[in-house]
Amino acid sequence: MDDLIDNAGRPASLLAGLDSPADLKKIPRSALPRLAEEIRREIIRVVGTNGGHLASSLGAVELIIALHYVLTAPEDQIIFDVGHQAYAHKILTGRRRRFETLRRAGGLSGFPKRGESPYDAFDTGHSSTSVSAALGLACARDLDGRDRRVVAVLGDGALTGGMALEAMNHAGALKKRLIVILNDNSMSISPNVGGLSEYLSIFVTRPAYVRFRRRLKGSLKQYLPGRSQRLINFLRRVEEALKSIFTSPSTLFEALGFKYLGPFDGHDAGLLIDALTGALNLDWPVLLHVVTTKGKGHPAAENDPMGFHGLGVPQKINELEAAGADGRSAPRESFSGAFGRLMLAEAEREPKLAAVSAAMSEGVGLAGFFEKYPERSFDVGIAEQHAVTLAAGLAAGGYRPVAAIYSSFLQRAFDQLYHDVALQKLPVVLAVDRAGPVGEDGPTHHGALDLSYLRLLPNFTVMAPADAVELEAMLRLALTLDGPSAIRYPRGAAPEPAAASREPVVPGRGVLWRAGRDLSIVALGPPAHEALAAAERLAGAGYAVSVLNLRFLKPLDRDLVLAEAQKTGRILTVEENVLSGGLFGAVSELLAGRRLRLRGLGLTDAPLEQGTQKSQRAALGLDAEGLFRAALEMLTDE
Amino acid sequence: MDDLIDNAGRPASLLAGLDSPADLKKIPRSALPRLAEEIRREIIRVVGTNGGHLASSLGAVELIIALHYVLTAPEDQIIFDVGHQAYAHKILTGRRRRFETLRRAGGLSGFPKRGESPYDAFDTGHSSTSVSAALGLACARDLDGRDRRVVAVLGDGALTGGMALEAMNHAGALKKRLIVILNDNSMSISPNVGGLSEYLSIFVTRPAYVRFRRRLKGSLKQYLPGRSQRLINFLRRVEEALKSIFTSPSTLFEALGFKYLGPFDGHDAGLLIDALTGALNLDWPVLLHVVTTKGKGHPAAENDPMGFHGLGVPQKINELEAAGADGRSAPRESFSGAFGRLMLAEAEREPKLAAVSAAMSEGVGLAGFFEKYPERSFDVGIAEQHAVTLAAGLAAGGYRPVAAIYSSFLQRAFDQLYHDVALQKLPVVLAVDRAGPVGEDGPTHHGALDLSYLRLLPNFTVMAPADAVELEAMLRLALTLDGPSAIRYPRGAAPEPAAASREPVVPGRGVLWRAGRDLSIVALGPPAHEALAAAERLAGAGYAVSVLNLRFLKPLDRDLVLAEAQKTGRILTVEENVLSGGLFGAVSELLAGRRLRLRGLGLTDAPLEQGTQKSQRAALGLDAEGLFRAALEMLTDE
Repeated sequence: MDDLIDNAGRPASLLAGLDSPADLKKIPRSALPRLAEEIRREIIRVVGTNGGHLASSLGAVELIIALHYVLTAPEDQIIFDVGHQAYAHKILTGRRRRFETLRRAGGLSGFPKRGESPYDAFDTGHSSTSVSAALGLACARDLDGRDRRVVAVLGDGALTGGMALEAMNHAGALKKRLIVILNDNSMSISPNVGGLSEYLSIFVTRPAYVRFRRRLKGSLKQYLPGRSQRLINFLRRVEEALKSIFTSPSTLFEALGFKYLGPFDGHDAGLLIDALTGALNLDWPVLLHVVTTKGKGHPAAENDPMGFHGLGVPQKINELEAAGADGRSAPRESFSGAFGRLMLAEAEREPKLAAVSAAMSEGVGLAGFFEKYPERSFDVGIAEQHAVTLAAGLAAGGYRPVAAIYSSFLQRAFDQLYHDVALQKLPVVLAVDRAGPVGEDGPTHHGALDLSYLRLLPNFTVMAPADAVELEAMLRLALTLDGPSAIRYPRGAAPEPAAASREPVVPGRGVLWRAGRDLSIVALGPPAHEALAAAERLAGAGYAVSVLNLRFLKPLDRDLVLAEAQKTGRILTVEENVLSGGLFGAVSELLAGRRLRLRGLGLTDAPLEQGTQKSQRAALGLDAEGLFRAALEMLTDE
Repeated sequence: MDDLIDNAGRPASLLAGLDSPADLKKIPRSALPRLAEEIRREIIRVVGTNGGHLASSLGAVELIIALHYVLTAPEDQIIFDVGHQAYAHKILTGRRRRFETLRRAGGLSGFPKRGESPYDAFDTGHSSTSVSAALGLACARDLDGRDRRVVAVLGDGALTGGMALEAMNHAGALKKRLIVILNDNSMSISPNVGGLSEYLSIFVTRPAYVRFRRRLKGSLKQYLPGRSQRLINFLRRVEEALKSIFTSPSTLFEALGFKYLGPFDGHDAGLLIDALTGALNLDWPVLLHVVTTKGKGHPAAENDPMGFHGLGVPQKINELEAAGADGRSAPRESFSGAFGRLMLAEAEREPKLAAVSAAMSEGVGLAGFFEKYPERSFDVGIAEQHAVTLAAGLAAGGYRPVAAIYSSFLQRAFDQLYHDVALQKLPVVLAVDRAGPVGEDGPTHHGALDLSYLRLLPNFTVMAPADAVELEAMLRLALTLDGPSAIRYPRGAAPEPAAASREPVVPGRGVLWRAGRDLSIVALGPPAHEALAAAERLAGAGYAVSVLNLRFLKPLDRDLVLAEAQKTGRILTVEENVLSGGLFGAVSELLAGRRLRLRGLGLTDAPLEQGTQKSQRAALGLDAEGLFRAALEMLTDE
């Protein structure tokens, strides 16, 4: 970073000479604010080009400086929950020079990765896993009789995820030496939700305290009828002492078995160094409460942390993210945007429609719905399990809940989908967003599995719209079904609808978009449009290729697939999902034992590395070019 | 129940005339203890014959009487968490005469079922779902402007499940009128685990209180140097008042936004009626804390509630469960028992071996291990998500954790398996117990899906032993692998090993147990033994049938399957898993496009109803007889 010369002509920046935490420790404490400023500038510069999680990373700069100032990583282990606040950690642990490659193909991951650096103690990406992982590492340490320090850093939003509470409860019982840092910015991805959050942020006077005051006054009247200034002063002290207990978050965490320290100003590195040093002396689970400002140091991000949370959210792409988008030029409506628009329209005609989100109302396109229909809107915080069963409860109560959740996060509610929705055949609609490759966020965030796991759910109807026109018809259909359904669609712009997109959507029925006799492309979702383009090119090469847009994975249009198999004898399936158990799986099971040429394009078992969505699709052959080549191979290789 | 005539010759029992909650309300409060006694007798009688969850159902009798005495169900809605404490509810809501059919094929379910009765407001079976469901029902009620009361009943064990805490946090924030009854018997299935549990049960003095006392004494010395009896009395009162606040569970639940009432004696129906009546007047989320004794009224179950939790646990089958077992006569070692024995043996040779259980150490066979190696044993409570990521943390810390979890409960950790174990390729071993049909517990408890969802996990090795000999070799192999693995096996007795069971277990390699040329049965797990028996019968009919024991679902032995397909041209797969995406799915994908006869036996998409394991297997054709018939059909139907 030789370009980070100070404006005033001072020598090279602090950051320029910083290649490991050992280098950090040579910097005097008085210079740490300047270092924080330099790190912020570097983060803003790189995220401005590559996209990424700006606001949460800016908020955690001083905290991460303090951690590496006090700890001796990698012997000491830091686990960052979710991980998108860890950019400063990457910069401080020998990855400064490679930071420009953040989120790019072959570059640094946007999340901690054990394979990337020994300083990354545990891979994260999804929320609320850090305390479990840290506790496991702490147990291993104690079994080995080692002395390393283990620290989990999690946001207040991650605390609403049940598994974080499971882990804290267990850690409290085991009394393990372990520090959990609550990085509290009173804002997870959407404004935080929950009694717990209110408790943390408002510091309200508790009813128990009110009861106690009443009793105290009763006692007082009985035993101390006389009054003196001394006594009044004494009682004031008692009251202050009580208030400090009742109105701090300590009781909650102490109930879970943690020692509570805080709250501390999370942007005062010196204070944090002292607090951490103190906490590390305790031989007990410690909750260190740190209050930070999301987007700290970037005026726009500070004012709009939600918009700047992940710079992949459509409306921000053009502002800051140049390379992160999928390369499509025109600002076409995204699937999420279309979904939000359609939900608003449906809400008008269907008074029983309700919307459920797990801290992602903005990302899934429901911000408008939540604003217009607050009473029918439920943001549960980062709590996908509860989101799904809450929806099941709403459905059992006669409502038509639509729960919109990202595909990879919905994995966390697999059991609830099965146990609470599918087995009871409750009319819950799942809007499964970010299905298929998501681009720069990489392996933890791809919606790679949903077709496979949704197909296992009894009573479910599983659909994938090829474009926004089909999405509209499918959403309307879903709201009339006598059972649960899922509609899955990818991140990013929806393709231009085809003429055939307007064919009525009938449960379990696909549509033959193009009829041929040489080969049939069987597609689910947006790849149907790529298949159409490929078929046109193949026609130029003299081949008549069918394009079957299946629309439904479950129930599968057996008749149409069987007819195509019989007619062309060559089936090429294409899906944005792993090839195990999804569309290719279902078609293979259906055609089991039939002689034909059958091949599938989709995600492989090996996790798909980060890159642009466009490059990922191209690498897997999911675009028109890939389909053209695969079809041609099947047509010519006899 | 006309046979329930009083010994003293008094007229027919109270229960005899009781066909609905309306009848219950005619009984005077003074007679409720007698009614409770009659209900207990009936539960003990039926569970003694049919098997079932004795201890938890006996503990909740007075609570359920009080609920139906005060509420007006089904307009008012009660959601029983897990549901195995609800037998008294079934008896009191018009199912008294059918109670004898409990858990039998075609009979009453052992869990609440909306399809069975309008009094069952929501289906349960897995833990910790009730508050989410109740909140959904309460939200629907309020949107409709109705007045019904919604009550969730959950055990203290279910509180350690993260989704219950997610839901309570959300309910507290929404301030919904909702009653959550904490049925606290200080014992979930295994003795309860967690800081929370300690907090509830020990009522320890909190550090905050200690700090306050110190401050109080300081103030005292400063302001009140003189002493008088009056003052000493006053301070004693202050201390008492403080203690009652700090040492009650109220602060925790109030932190979550609930009003706390209790604790109440859960076996005093009159008291509970009063408490409930009071709670129902509050327009706020209420936590009603009720303390009960698990197994109440049955001396053996009271003394050994863990052994009597589910009367399907092998050591208790012969004592109380006559019809519930799977009909096998000799008391052969169960898979769970073998697993526990093998873990003890492995622990001796492998100092890095650790065991993880989610409140089921007894059920999965780990009781001996937990007793002998407490420092390497981790019971996390009912918290499967945390269990899996804790294991991942232990593995990242250099240990060899084996997490033993029932197949259907492991569904709750699907995301953790993917995100925390598979993507990081951590050497965690999953011992997946109760895989396949489980018998009387029915749809919520079958291990119907694990082969399908485990196959989706990158880097995983997925195995299924045919018997205890293979289980031993697989466990040893798993502990040497450089990545995660799962070993899945069913409930109940392990088959007698075959000679070929002793063939070395090699990753991704199946074993041809019997070579034929007419048809190949491709089996995974114990059905391999059934296949061998079927092949022998088929030999008698003149057919030479191969039996391929695959051992591994992932990686699949492609060469061996392809060779069999080429040789015999007839493949019959058999698995104790749904036919979508599991063994039949994998084989169909592998053989896609090849002309052959390919058929699969396994569970269907329609949930498998309760019955005996034996009858379930027979109905699906998973036994020797079914395999014989299916193979014969394939052999003769040209």
